[in-house]
Amino acid sequence: MAGPKAPEARAPGRVRLGVLGCGNVGAAFVGLVDAGAEEIAARSGVVLEVAKVAVRDRSRQRPIELAPGRVSNDAAQLVRSDDVDLVVELIGGIEPARSLVLDALASGKPVVTANKELMATAGAELLAAAELAGVDLYFEASVAGAIPLLRLLADSLGGERIDRVMGIVNGTTNYVLTKMSDEGSTYADALSQAQLLGYAEADPSADVEGHDARAKAAILAGIAFDADVTAADVYREGISGVGPDDIDFAHRLGYEVKLLAVAERVPAGITVRVHPAMVPRDHPLATVRGAFNAVFIEGAAAGELMCYGRGAGGLPTASAVLGDVLAAAHHLEDGVRSRHSRRERVQLRPMSELRMQYYLTLDVADRPGVLAAVARIFGEHRVSIRSMEQVGLGGEARLVFITHTALEADVQATLVALADLDAVERVGGLLRVIGPEP
Amino acid sequence: MAGPKAPEARAPGRVRLGVLGCGNVGAAFVGLVDAGAEEIAARSGVVLEVAKVAVRDRSRQRPIELAPGRVSNDAAQLVRSDDVDLVVELIGGIEPARSLVLDALASGKPVVTANKELMATAGAELLAAAELAGVDLYFEASVAGAIPLLRLLADSLGGERIDRVMGIVNGTTNYVLTKMSDEGSTYADALSQAQLLGYAEADPSADVEGHDARAKAAILAGIAFDADVTAADVYREGISGVGPDDIDFAHRLGYEVKLLAVAERVPAGITVRVHPAMVPRDHPLATVRGAFNAVFIEGAAAGELMCYGRGAGGLPTASAVLGDVLAAAHHLEDGVRSRHSRRERVQLRPMSELRMQYYLTLDVADRPGVLAAVARIFGEHRVSIRSMEQVGLGGEARLVFITHTALEADVQATLVALADLDAVERVGGLLRVIGPEP
Repeated sequence: MAGPKAPEARAPGRVRLGVLGCGNVGAAFVGLVDAGAEEIAARSGVVLEVAKVAVRDRSRQRPIELAPGRVSNDAAQLVRSDDVDLVVELIGGIEPARSLVLDALASGKPVVTANKELMATAGAELLAAAELAGVDLYFEASVAGAIPLLRLLADSLGGERIDRVMGIVNGTTNYVLTKMSDEGSTYADALSQAQLLGYAEADPSADVEGHDARAKAAILAGIAFDADVTAADVYREGISGVGPDDIDFAHRLGYEVKLLAVAERVPAGITVRVHPAMVPRDHPLATVRGAFNAVFIEGAAAGELMCYGRGAGGLPTASAVLGDVLAAAHHLEDGVRSRHSRRERVQLRPMSELRMQYYLTLDVADRPGVLAAVARIFGEHRVSIRSMEQVGLGGEARLVFITHTALEADVQATLVALADLDAVERVGGLLRVIGPEP
Repeated sequence: MAGPKAPEARAPGRVRLGVLGCGNVGAAFVGLVDAGAEEIAARSGVVLEVAKVAVRDRSRQRPIELAPGRVSNDAAQLVRSDDVDLVVELIGGIEPARSLVLDALASGKPVVTANKELMATAGAELLAAAELAGVDLYFEASVAGAIPLLRLLADSLGGERIDRVMGIVNGTTNYVLTKMSDEGSTYADALSQAQLLGYAEADPSADVEGHDARAKAAILAGIAFDADVTAADVYREGISGVGPDDIDFAHRLGYEVKLLAVAERVPAGITVRVHPAMVPRDHPLATVRGAFNAVFIEGAAAGELMCYGRGAGGLPTASAVLGDVLAAAHHLEDGVRSRHSRRERVQLRPMSELRMQYYLTLDVADRPGVLAAVARIFGEHRVSIRSMEQVGLGGEARLVFITHTALEADVQATLVALADLDAVERVGGLLRVIGPEP
């Protein structure tokens, strides 16, 4: 019996991939490379070959066929193997992904990952490790699936001063909000529907509470502003408080409600945040429907740009991974690597400094003098009302306000003071309003 | 007096740009680099410097100040000068741009151009010259202004099988069609308005007859399908035949009318064409308003992608040029260059083989038996009618048809036969319908 084959050096024009994980995205990626290698080689001059796939459980049924020689359950060995030139991390989660990526980089292997938690938590550490090792670390698929957004921001707009990045980066919540907008469904009904169709998990909290969008916001802010931003730095509100009434009012006022991830330049730094917002109906983001993602970019010279596409799913995500793999493979061939801008700890400004328009509702006792008392509290806190509408609710009334541009701190103080008023039964949802005052 | 300075070799980390032309885009580009060089150097590690600007008339007033030493009227000398590392061609038109670009490439200088006529006419020749010289030739700004579409197709989607690229790539016509759609204006009124606002030229034919879109369609097809396609290969119809009635019918049927540039894979090759089309109102392209551009891409793995942004204007175009300049500058620093896929002469299929749904109108004498005669001609030519509506016009009637999916050759033959019918007064506009049959 022959002993194990001695490792071979990389042949020119040939890049051997080691893939960590063979779930939904992993299987799609391996399938794309296996089926498309010939065409890819003809177009790009590089032969890609999935040399090894590391899985936790070798006996599990998978949608693709993997010859026994290609499968391993020793990921730690794979990332150091001399038979692998480039590592594709598709495990997800922080550990063991983080250690495996660090090991791969330290072994001089470029890494492509689709792991948003990892990049939003340990991005700066991993980029520094890539820099030190002199190899590429790409993570296009970690934000907005198939949309090649990170390369757009880093390369095509590399000379551009980005003022704001604002995106619909979570398909589940956009599906739920679209359903509520189209059919007047309650949040609970729309969510059940999303779960039935596989757009939402059994435990939907990562999506609906904005945790997923928060990780993506951190990654986007990092690329757009060369900033070291982690998920923990990002202000977060989910959509579970949005009701059919809010959407109804939004429609009457010419808006759609969307969960936005926003990273923007403000006078003394940047803000990064995730919250539901009222988006003017003629804004390109308002037209993004269902489980699609889109990111709207405002640049000083380029003006307004938007990219739209599938934000999730095995094949679309695998397509973004493949784009990264090709870029890294070309660099391997050329003996160069990507330039990572230096990440600096920028000043993250707190939410209290935000200046926006606000939508808010109050349920109050329907009696004379209440509106005067409410209006006085707005005035005392320097919050000026742009429009007010009263809707009867039997013995109560609902007051619906849109403010002029106001300071978030003032608005929050107004809400506290309003809750203390005897006549106020309930302070309802607060939605931030996008766009200039009409 | 000292003699002329001896040329200096390029210092590492420093790229000296020679700019040809200082019109709207040229002045914006020089302004961007002059103002942003420090920030660009901090982000990308490369110092860009506009060393020379070649203009036809040195005495002309310009929006930016150019020290006399930076201005030249000898473009031919500039592209060969050892004081210039990279040439930016912003003259427009075929000659002398073509010769200057060829000279620059032959002198070993990478070239960035925003020139759509040039790339749509001599693209294959210029790319071959760049290949021979071993330097980059980039032309992002030649299509869809600020939208970084060519890099997206060539790089991020380099491993993707593109099935179709479909774009609104001319801002003038989209402005006119949006105006007609919003306000029910006639074509002539909407065009006058566009001319007043500077969205259309005094002689608007390059835009409204689809010549501009045709050049961009050729460039898009070239990148998407690695195909050698020139403007002359592209089927072209403009929007001057679109009337308010057509738009009115489109609305009633759930469509918007848009001028589309389409490049798509068909069984025996590709088709590339420009024509007005009915786009379903819930299609992302239907929501693109005013002078904006957008390109919708369908990839086998990535699914549907769309990029949206400003398609023209000095600063947005200059932003795209700057993205290309940075990419080429990084390659100069690294001593590498972009991979151009080999362009192959693909089979361009004629329009007659197209299979679509069609919208068409007929003005007919309003008397019994006419509809039967008309319907028989459709049937004889294998064109099946999906919907018909009759609108009274006094003594005449207008018949409005939408067909089921039919062969273009059959539809054209139907139109010829219909024009021969006694009862037919006028065969009105034909619009191709995008999307699946409802």
